[in-house]
Amino acid sequence: MPPDETPPPCTFCEILAGRLPSSQVYSGADVVAFMDIRPANRGHMLVVPRRHVARLEELDERAGERVFQAAHRLSRAVYRSGLPCHGIDLFLADGEEAGQEVFHVHLHVLPRFAGDGFKISARWLHPDRAELDETAATLRESLAGITT
Amino acid sequence: MPPDETPPPCTFCEILAGRLPSSQVYSGADVVAFMDIRPANRGHMLVVPRRHVARLEELDERAGERVFQAAHRLSRAVYRSGLPCHGIDLFLADGEEAGQEVFHVHLHVLPRFAGDGFKISARWLHPDRAELDETAATLRESLAGITT
Repeated sequence: MPPDETPPPCTFCEILAGRLPSSQVYSGADVVAFMDIRPANRGHMLVVPRRHVARLEELDERAGERVFQAAHRLSRAVYRSGLPCHGIDLFLADGEEAGQEVFHVHLHVLPRFAGDGFKISARWLHPDRAELDETAATLRESLAGITT
Repeated sequence: MPPDETPPPCTFCEILAGRLPSSQVYSGADVVAFMDIRPANRGHMLVVPRRHVARLEELDERAGERVFQAAHRLSRAVYRSGLPCHGIDLFLADGEEAGQEVFHVHLHVLPRFAGDGFKISARWLHPDRAELDETAATLRESLAGITT
């Protein structure tokens, strides 16, 4: 990017500022929820913190809790809404390699039903207990170094 | 099930009680995290509330927040751990139709990296704004009926 150009504005910040349209479901002091414009099923929502943060690393823990609380309550609303919904997936992709496309933290609330075509595939691993214990020890050590 | 048989114990409750093995990463007052025994990538963890609840509907909001807070902090630990991790997916499946396999609420923390083979597919929809607005109105109405 040439030095005289400013980065493009964040799509979700533009929505929150009312400069881009959205179909809003919830508006709280710290958190807003609106419809995903490319839903996997009808009722697919995004829950976002008002304050712009691109990644989990920069997200305040309390803000994260509020995002989850809103998603939890919205999930209960979807079940009661009459929309096709026999299950719900909550999904947050952090980082491009994890599937994040808009770099403003967001949690998906996705209504699910049998035969809806949503599918996760992976190369599932089968580690033995020794390997699991070793990985857990590595993660415990790393966790101990986190200052909050 | 014949009336004289008791239901099988919950696998995660058995783990929390120490009657089944686990590779534990975190143990808090309300929340525990341990390695998924069938990980999609190395470092794949499950974060679970200590108190048994099968579904989001029964989960106390504060307990949900604590599960998310732990997952958030564990995510930061994974990034620092040295395990292959350039992104993270947080995933919670609520209900059989959403992919839930163990009926004790759990949030997946999944380290991701390019080419790891993890993939989501869906029949993505392209609703127009009028349809999105109508769905949002349905959800707002349902949300207004939720008592907390």
